[in-house]
Amino acid sequence: MVNVDISNIWCSVTLPMLLESEQQISAAHAALMDGEAAAFLPWLDGDNSAVLEQVEEAAKAIRAQAGVLVVVGSDSAVAGVRAVVELLRGRDHNLRPGTQIVFAGSDLSTRSWQHLAELLEKRDFCVHLLGRDGADVQSAVTTRALRWMLERRYGTEKSRERVYVSTDPVIGPLREIAAAEGYQTFDLLPTVGDHASVLDPGALLAAAVAGIDLRKLLDGALTARLAMEIRSFENPAWLYAAGRTILASRGKVTEYLTTLEPDAGALGRWWKQLFGSRACANGEGLLPALAEIPGDLHTMHGMFSDGTQPLVQTVLRFDPPDQKVAVEMDWQNQDGYNYLEGFTLDYVQEQAMAAVVAVGADSGVPIFQVDCGRIEPGDVGQLLYFFELTSCLCAGMVGRDVYASEGPSRWSEQMARLLGRPEE
Amino acid sequence: MVNVDISNIWCSVTLPMLLESEQQISAAHAALMDGEAAAFLPWLDGDNSAVLEQVEEAAKAIRAQAGVLVVVGSDSAVAGVRAVVELLRGRDHNLRPGTQIVFAGSDLSTRSWQHLAELLEKRDFCVHLLGRDGADVQSAVTTRALRWMLERRYGTEKSRERVYVSTDPVIGPLREIAAAEGYQTFDLLPTVGDHASVLDPGALLAAAVAGIDLRKLLDGALTARLAMEIRSFENPAWLYAAGRTILASRGKVTEYLTTLEPDAGALGRWWKQLFGSRACANGEGLLPALAEIPGDLHTMHGMFSDGTQPLVQTVLRFDPPDQKVAVEMDWQNQDGYNYLEGFTLDYVQEQAMAAVVAVGADSGVPIFQVDCGRIEPGDVGQLLYFFELTSCLCAGMVGRDVYASEGPSRWSEQMARLLGRPEE
Repeated sequence: MVNVDISNIWCSVTLPMLLESEQQISAAHAALMDGEAAAFLPWLDGDNSAVLEQVEEAAKAIRAQAGVLVVVGSDSAVAGVRAVVELLRGRDHNLRPGTQIVFAGSDLSTRSWQHLAELLEKRDFCVHLLGRDGADVQSAVTTRALRWMLERRYGTEKSRERVYVSTDPVIGPLREIAAAEGYQTFDLLPTVGDHASVLDPGALLAAAVAGIDLRKLLDGALTARLAMEIRSFENPAWLYAAGRTILASRGKVTEYLTTLEPDAGALGRWWKQLFGSRACANGEGLLPALAEIPGDLHTMHGMFSDGTQPLVQTVLRFDPPDQKVAVEMDWQNQDGYNYLEGFTLDYVQEQAMAAVVAVGADSGVPIFQVDCGRIEPGDVGQLLYFFELTSCLCAGMVGRDVYASEGPSRWSEQMARLLGRPEE
Repeated sequence: MVNVDISNIWCSVTLPMLLESEQQISAAHAALMDGEAAAFLPWLDGDNSAVLEQVEEAAKAIRAQAGVLVVVGSDSAVAGVRAVVELLRGRDHNLRPGTQIVFAGSDLSTRSWQHLAELLEKRDFCVHLLGRDGADVQSAVTTRALRWMLERRYGTEKSRERVYVSTDPVIGPLREIAAAEGYQTFDLLPTVGDHASVLDPGALLAAAVAGIDLRKLLDGALTARLAMEIRSFENPAWLYAAGRTILASRGKVTEYLTTLEPDAGALGRWWKQLFGSRACANGEGLLPALAEIPGDLHTMHGMFSDGTQPLVQTVLRFDPPDQKVAVEMDWQNQDGYNYLEGFTLDYVQEQAMAAVVAVGADSGVPIFQVDCGRIEPGDVGQLLYFFELTSCLCAGMVGRDVYASEGPSRWSEQMARLLGRPEE
C-alpha cells in the first residue's frame, strides 16, 4: 500500500497546523466523493470486464498485425498511458522484442513527422486515436496524415481495421470520425479531465499491447480507492494533500519530485501535468517540477543551502524486484569501491535514497517520502489512484472545482486567431 | 547565428538597468577569457584534427562490430553527448537503422540493469566509459558489471578492443583502469567541468557513432566563439546573461525553458544541469526548469495570470528543415481544420510559437526568444557554445568562479558514510 512519511516536513509544518486543516480537507474529500454530481473515477467500482475483454482482444489483434502502434493524442491525453508503459516495461521498452509503441500528435515538428514516416515506411502499423475531444490542432493534423498513410498502404477497407479510437461516448470530432469510418471505439468515461484516463481501461490500449495486465492495475486502483476512503490523517492521501496545501500557504513555491528509478521519468511528467493543471493556478498551490537524481542534485543542494528557499521535495521510493544483483568485485580495486563487497545493487540504491533525504532534511527542506511499493501493475494502480485523489483534494482545499470545464486554452485560441480560423 | 530577442523582457527590465550591468558583465567576460589561468574551451582555437580522426576511426570500428554502444557515465558527464545525439538524430534515434546508443551508469536501479543485460544478451556491444573522474558509485558499479560481461562474452583479450575511455589525461580511476587494460583512450581536456565536454571531441564518440559530423559541430562552436567575443550588447550572449542576471536580482526565481521541438528534450536537461550547477546557488541566480509545450502550458498560463509570479520564460526557436510537409486535407472536415489548407506544418508550428510568446507576454512574463538556427551540426555547435558562454557569464556576474573545484557533493559523501566507506 502507498505510504507517506511526513517525518521531514516538521521543519515547516506544525502539528496544530495539520490538525487545523482537518475541516478543510474533510470538506474537500466529501465534495469529491459524496456530492450528487460527483463522479470520481466511477467506473472503478463497477464491472469493467466487458471493456477489458474488448481492449485485450484489440491488443492481441494489434500485436498480431503490427510492428508499431502509433498512439495519437495531446500531451495530456497520452501522458498517463505513457507513464504506465515506461514504468512497467522500462523507458527503453521499444528496444525489447514485441510491437513497438510510439507517441505522436502532441507536436507540429516537421522533423519529428519525417522520422515517424521513415519508421513506418518499412513496418506494418496500427493507430490508436486517444482523446476526450481530439480537437487540438497537433493531434488533428497528425491524425489526418496517419489516416491517409494507412489508406494508401492498405486500401480504404483494410485500413479501417487498423485504427482504434478512444474518445467521448457521444460527442467530438473523434467520435464523428469513428462513426463515419466504422473504427473500433472505446468509450472514455466522463470524469475529472484527460489526466484521469490513466485509470480508464479504454485509454490503456497501448499498455495492453505492451503486455501489461490491466486487470491487476485496476484492481490496485480499486484497493487504494477503498483504503483511501478513510476520512482522517491515517489516510496517506490526507497527509500528502494537507501537507502540501499547508506548505503552499506558508510561502513555499515549488515542489520537486525526485526518484532514483529512471523508468519513472514519464510518471513524473504525468504527475507534473496533473498537479499543475488541477491544483495550482493564480499563485495558489505548489508549482510542480521534476528533479533528476543525481543530475539535478547539485542544483537542488546548492539552492537548499539554508532552508529559506521556497522549495519542497517529494521523494518516490520503489521496492526492489525479487531478483537481486550483487555489486561485482574487482581485485585491482582501481575505483576504490571494494568496500561494497557483499552488497546488492538495491541495498546501495536504498542508501543513496537515504542520503538524498538526509541532505535535504539537513538543509531544512520539507520532504514527503512516498513509499510506492513495487513496480508491478497492482502497486502502480494504487499509486496512480493516490495521485488522482490527492490532486483533487488539493484543488478542493483551495476551492477549485476539478469538474468545471476549462474551455480552450488561451494558447490554442491565440494560435487559431493567428492561423485565421473562420468565425463560427 | 544564434540571436536573442529581448523585446518581451521590458515588462520587468528597463534599459537603464541593462546599461548599468555593462561593467559587471564586461568584467565577467574579461575574467573568463583574458585571465592568466583562464582556459575556456581552449581546444576550440587549436588544431583538433588528430583527435577527430581518432574518434572517427573508433566510431567506424564500433559501427562495424557492435549493434549497441553503451555509454557509461554520470548524468553530468553524458548529458551533453545525449543532447547532441537526440537533437540531431531524433529522440527515437534507436528505432532507426544503425548501431543503437544507450546510456547507463547514472543510476543504481536493479530493474534498469536487468533490462540492459537482457538487451545486450543477443547483441554484440561496445562500451564507452566517459567521465572526468569516473569516481561516482553509479558509474563505477556499472563499469565493473559491463567489463566482466564483456570478458565473459569475448574473452580477456578481445574484450579490450571493445572498451573506449574518455577521461582526464593524467589522473583518476578511469585513467588507471585504461592504462592497466590498454583500452583506447581520448583525453578530456581540462576546462570548466563536466558539462563543457559537450564540445570536447573526445567526449562525443557516441555522436560520431550516430553519424553526426563532429567537425561541423566544432566549426559551429568556433564561429560562435569568434562572434561572441564582442564586448557589447550587440553580443546575444550579453543580452541573455545580463538579462537573466537582472531578472534574478529583481525577484524572479524560476526560468522555464520551452520549445516546440520535441527532439530538444535532452538539450533542455543539459541546459538545466548547466545553469543549475554553474549559475545558481545560495539563492542567487534563476532556478532553471523545463516546461513541455503544450503539456505544461496550462500550468504556466495558470501561474502567469497576472505577471506577479516570479517566473521567466525562455523560448527556443529552430528553423524548419528544407523539405516541407503540407497539412493534409479532408473533404469531410469533421475536425474542422480545413482552414489550414495550403499551410505547411512548419508554418503552423511558427504560429503556435508566436502564440506561446503572445500569451506569456500578455501576462507580463519576461520572455527571452532564442533563435537557434537549424537543427544541423554547425548551428547546434553555435547554440551549445552560446549556452556554455552565457552560463559562465552569469556565474561571473555574481562572483562565482566556474573554474573552482567543487569537491564531492554532500549527497555522495553522505551515501559513502551510509555504505561504510573505510577511512583513507
